[in-house]
Order: sequence, then structure tokens, then C-alpha cells
Amino acid sequence: MSAPGSVGQVAPQRMRFDAPLALRSGAAIAGYELVYETYGELNAARSNAVLICHALNASHHVAGTYGDDPKTAGWWDNMVGPGKPVDTRRFFVVCVNNLGSCFGSTGPMSRNPATGEPYGPDFPVVTVEDWVHAQARLADELGIARFAAVMGGSLGGMQALAWATLYPGRVAHCVAIATAPKLSAQNIAFNEVARRAIITDPDFHGGRFYAHGVVPARGLQVARMIGHITYLSDDSMAEKFGRALRPSPEALAAQLAAGGVSETDAPPRSDYRFTFDIEFEIESYLRYQGEKFSKYFDANTYLLITRALDYFDPALAHGGDLAAALAPATADFLVASFTTDWRFAPERSREIVQALLAARKRVTYAEIDAPHGHDAFLLEDPQYLAVVAAYFDRIHTRSVAGAGAASPAPQHQEAAA
Amino acid sequence: MSAPGSVGQVAPQRMRFDAPLALRSGAAIAGYELVYETYGELNAARSNAVLICHALNASHHVAGTYGDDPKTAGWWDNMVGPGKPVDTRRFFVVCVNNLGSCFGSTGPMSRNPATGEPYGPDFPVVTVEDWVHAQARLADELGIARFAAVMGGSLGGMQALAWATLYPGRVAHCVAIATAPKLSAQNIAFNEVARRAIITDPDFHGGRFYAHGVVPARGLQVARMIGHITYLSDDSMAEKFGRALRPSPEALAAQLAAGGVSETDAPPRSDYRFTFDIEFEIESYLRYQGEKFSKYFDANTYLLITRALDYFDPALAHGGDLAAALAPATADFLVASFTTDWRFAPERSREIVQALLAARKRVTYAEIDAPHGHDAFLLEDPQYLAVVAAYFDRIHTRSVAGAGAASPAPQHQEAAA
Repeated sequence: MSAPGSVGQVAPQRMRFDAPLALRSGAAIAGYELVYETYGELNAARSNAVLICHALNASHHVAGTYGDDPKTAGWWDNMVGPGKPVDTRRFFVVCVNNLGSCFGSTGPMSRNPATGEPYGPDFPVVTVEDWVHAQARLADELGIARFAAVMGGSLGGMQALAWATLYPGRVAHCVAIATAPKLSAQNIAFNEVARRAIITDPDFHGGRFYAHGVVPARGLQVARMIGHITYLSDDSMAEKFGRALRPSPEALAAQLAAGGVSETDAPPRSDYRFTFDIEFEIESYLRYQGEKFSKYFDANTYLLITRALDYFDPALAHGGDLAAALAPATADFLVASFTTDWRFAPERSREIVQALLAARKRVTYAEIDAPHGHDAFLLEDPQYLAVVAAYFDRIHTRSVAGAGAASPAPQHQEAAA
Repeated sequence: MSAPGSVGQVAPQRMRFDAPLALRSGAAIAGYELVYETYGELNAARSNAVLICHALNASHHVAGTYGDDPKTAGWWDNMVGPGKPVDTRRFFVVCVNNLGSCFGSTGPMSRNPATGEPYGPDFPVVTVEDWVHAQARLADELGIARFAAVMGGSLGGMQALAWATLYPGRVAHCVAIATAPKLSAQNIAFNEVARRAIITDPDFHGGRFYAHGVVPARGLQVARMIGHITYLSDDSMAEKFGRALRPSPEALAAQLAAGGVSETDAPPRSDYRFTFDIEFEIESYLRYQGEKFSKYFDANTYLLITRALDYFDPALAHGGDLAAALAPATADFLVASFTTDWRFAPERSREIVQALLAARKRVTYAEIDAPHGHDAFLLEDPQYLAVVAAYFDRIHTRSVAGAGAASPAPQHQEAAA
């Protein structure tokens, strides 16, 4: 086995769907395009496909780079590649940019065929379930009747759970990481504050800001800052920033003039400047993250995706009984959570595990001791990556290597598992 | 002992200070006014005064009502009054509106004598220590050489701690509730997002919005929504709101037309409307709180007070050694925290207690099992109120009833305690 590597240079693909997609809201999208990437090779039995579902602000670009620029590495490049936990020498990995996104698939920035203008606020509200149905259509086109695994973290984990119940015959394994069976009131509250910041920004123009040549940058910045606070643990924020003070602009300038030192060489400050400008390092970090985000993320997409999070609640149609909601699933499950994640705390994953057990499903649960809060699902953590690697070894043994040449006979496979 | 009652109708008082107040930042306020309220009677020995320090969005109006309107009850009316934990039949209670506030004391809305215009952004940055010095001057004018207790919750608790070290001879007991020895990076981060929401609101006009006849209401709303999330526990939000859906405006209107039912009679919904308008009860609650707040709170004051929170860090001048920072205190301490408070969690209070013990101070610590998060310090909780009542009984016995007729001899009293 060679050292884990990158899938190398990749390129997104695009597929057009002309048949309307009926949405959970009752609306429909007349025709749409999905952008996606794939890594590895689909085997002859078509049994080695893994679908990766992306979270709030991510895209179809999971692994590899565009051109040879390492800065363009995919958002889960540590998870997917040759020799990595989701080993592209064994698995054919697919990731689809979800409807409503701003990264290539049809969304609010796309041309509304009814008006010739960008959809903007007229783009229909989409749900986790709608995304799953759209992904299933793409899988049809790719000739994938059944996935060896559907996998995701956070909002991606919700899609994986929805796949397992909406298309039980098409999911051999469901991998749901750092996720929740539904948002709490506090989760919804954070989303709502972020949306209010965007919607009340005068540059939002009721969602039709494209026509005004502006973006609601102030609202997006605040939204992103709020998000970032919830992605990091209190402890990791304390360790990374604590109460460290940012060097004053004058001190930095003087040092640069004197000897060309970098920002990070500046000595730590312990004197306050008594200002509403940046004083603490954490302020500098949050503003930087907010500004960066406001330059590439679409405000209407932010509203749509946070609303999809709010609405996800598979137990709702079953009187709140999550085990009943999960009953149709035939997949094996890997559920993983992180001890310091307070956005979707381990308790939320345990709810899923308990419901799966109550519904007599096969579940592996890993509660990983990691300091990084919700963000941990994206980070390099040996224990975490080893758990996923071991689980995908099992998937390979049971669902791929042992699946024979025939196209899947799901019920039989499940019974044999 | 009669049933606990109200202090009745009260009226704020006002005192002018012409001597400049030197601030920690190096700036000074040339002259200023403080608004305050008092309840009960100062005894002949002047030994029964209790100073209550207010938190972020509160005022000098701690107890009683204005006129006979029960809606104007003070913010700690359950704590202060005849027969209440801080019993106004025994104690003379003083609460001062802090400098920089928008409730009467000199602040950003006041006329800047240098320009004749409102101070706005030219009001100097004030700190917890500055407030304490201003309060001490007021105490001088009121003839209070030494307080039987200085007490506060949250930011008010920080003022109580600062009193104990800045004026050790003037504080017999320090009562610090639901507070912290300094903000964490996460605490500062939430403050910074709130400030960004205000400062980037185009109606803020660099803090000179008074001249434009507007207020940065959108920014204040977002700031208040963020604040509210951090004041409530995840559990209490879940219990109070959960994922309950707000009745649709149409359903409410139809019901009102049919029989005049109230909003609260509307049946709970379980169907989504797929909208960015209010869908969940928690959204309705937060928007209501945000809008209410934006109508009465000054944006410049919000910046000042959150910055005072950020800057509080008594250990900073002692190389981070909190015990060294607290060493000058001669008071007895009551420290109290609430199990579900995640803004200033019990760990933060335990830091204070450990530092006090390391500095060989007398400390009583109560960690109160309460579901309401940070807000618990303002709420009716029998165990909490009983702890405070018992402590004030002790204060009365030791520092008031036993203090004799003479004016305080602090060191002697402490030695006898």
C-alpha cells in the first residue's frame, strides 16, 4: 500500500435534467442542472459507488485539486483519495452540488426560464429530501442502482440518513457524522439570526440584489461570523485565540518598515488600545472569515440551505417517533460524533443510534474525543480517520468485494450481512 | 415577618459631578451626571448600605414601580424589597446607572460640552473599573464610607469583584452572581458579532445617527437576538419553544374573525409553510425581542458596554494570576453560578472561588441547579433566592446589627468576622 495521496487534478462535470422535479413544498423545478465530481472507477459490478453529501457552505469539490494549485484542494481531501479512509483505489466516489447552491448547480443565481432573470428569491424552498431525490436521479444516469455507502457530515449526514429511509434498496451503508435528527430551538435560533442579518441588509433588495450590482456583504459577514462561533468549541477558541491582542496597525507597520518581519513575528501585546476597532485576535479572525465568505457565497443560497437544515425532521411525520421514521432503512449505519461539538453534540448522535437500535438496525457508533468542536468532522484526527477507514474496509469486504458481478439484490445482501 | 412585598412607588434621583473623572483609557470625562435609585433607609451607623451593580442592558431601576404600573417593576424586584432576600427593612439599597448608559446617566446620547452635540462615538471607552470609581464618588456624596455588600450578576458581578479589590476598605461583603473573571474568546466573539451588526448598519452613520433622525434598528435587532440566544440554555429554549410552529397569519386572522380567540388559543401547527417568514415560534420570539430592544436601547451604549465586558480582566496586570489580583480584598465573598449557564458557566465561577481560596479569602460558593441558563440570575428560583437570603441574614448579623453606632473600622471588623 503506497502512502496516502491525492486523487490529483479533477474537473467538475455537469448534467442537465429536463423532467420537472416535484419538491416537498408542493412547488417544482421545471428543469435543472447538477454539477458533480467523481473520483476512482466504477467497477464492473457497479457495486463500489460511494455518494458523499456536502454540508452548508461546501460543494461537489470533495477531493483533488483544480490544475496543480494545492490551495484548490477539496473540502474532504483528507478523507477521500488513494490510501485514504474512503480509498479511491477501491471506491468510486461521487459528490453532487445540491440544488439551490451557488457553486454550479441550478440555484438562485441561475436564470429563471419563466422570467429570463436570476431566480433570486423566487427559487423554491428546497429540503434535504428534495436534494436526495435529485441525487438519486443523477445516480440513475450514472448507472448506480445502489451505493455501497452514502456518507456525509453535519447537513451532509442528514442527507445520508434521508437516503437510507427514502431509498432503502439503494444504500448498503449509511455514514452519518456530526449530525442530528433535527435542529434544536437553539440551532434554529442561530440560523434565524444569520438570516435576519442578511434579509435586513439594505443591499439584499428582497433577494433581487443581482440586478443592483451589489451583494448584502454586511449581512453575509455577520451570518458567517455567527456560523464560525458555532463550528468551534469554546476550548479550541480559547486555545487558538484566547484573549490575545492583535498588534496595532502602527506597530505592524513600524516593524515591517524596520526589517520586514511578518505579522506573525509581532510580539504579543498586553496593553489595551480602548477601541471598537480590532483589539483581540478573535475579532480579527472572525472579520477575516466573514469578509472572505461574503465575497464568494450567495446570500439567497445561505437562506435556502439554513432553511433546509431547519426543516429536516424525519420523525415529524411519525408523531415524533424517530425509530418509526428510520424503520424503512435496510442499510448498516456508522454514526460518529465529537465530544466538543456543541452545534450537534454527541447527545444528538446518540438519539439517532438509540432510534436505530430500537428499529433493530445494525449500528456502529463512535464518539470521538476531539477538541475542535463541530469543525472536527473536516479535520485531521487520527482516531476519527481510523474509525472511518476501518468501516470502509468492512464495506469493501461485505458490499463490494463480496458483491459478485451481478447488479445488487439488496434484500439478499442485507440478510447475508 | 409579613409577606414579601414591593418597595412600592419609586423615583430616580440624579447627581451632578463637576470634577473630571480620569478613565482607565487615559481619557477623562469633564463633568457628568449619575442617575440612581435608593430603597430602604440608611441607618444611623451608616452600616447597612448595599450597592447593586447592573448588567448589560439594565438600569438603576432595580425594584418597585414608577407610578402604580406593575409593568414598570424593577429588574431585580424579586430580589430587593421588604421581606425579600435583600430586605429593604434592614438594608439601604443603592443602584447607580453606569456612565455610558442610555437610561439617564451621562452617555453617548448626552450633550458633549465640547461640541454642543450628542457625544455619540466621541463618548470615551469606559471600563468596569471606571464605573466603580464613579459609583464610589456617588457613595461619598451619599455619606456611605463602607457598603455592607456590593452585589451584582453577570457584568454586575464583575463590578462587585472590582469594588472588592479597588476599595477593599469600603466593601464588607462581595456578592458575585453568574459572572466570570474575564470573558473567554467565545464570549468576546459573540460581542464582536453583535457590534459588527450595529456598526455595519448603514443607519449607524459612524455613531452619529442622532443627527440623521434614525437608529441602527436592524443592527440592534441582530445584536439582541444573539444576546438572547446566549442568555438562555439550550434546554430551556427546547422546553419553551422546541420546534413548535407559529400559527400562520391567515389562520390567526380567520380565528379572530370567527370568534375572537387570542393568539395563544390557536391550535399548534405541524405543517411547514416553506417560507423565510416566521415559521417557528423561536423565530417569532427572537424577532419580537430584537424589535422591542431596538426601540429603547442606544446603539453606542451597546458598543460601550460590550467593550467594558471584553476589557474586564483583573488578572492581566498580575501576569494572569487571579489570586494575586484578588489579594487586596478584605471582604467576605458569596459566589453563585447556575448549572445551565453557558455564557458564564459554573467553571468560570469556580475559577473565582479557587483564586479567592488561594488568596486566603472567606468564600461561600453556591452552584445552583437551575434550567434557565444565564438568565437564571434574574429569575424566581427558590433555592437561589434562599441562598442569597441566608447570606444577607449573615451580613445583617455580622456587619449591620453588630457594627455598633460608630462609622466603620474596616480592618477591625474583618478581623472579628
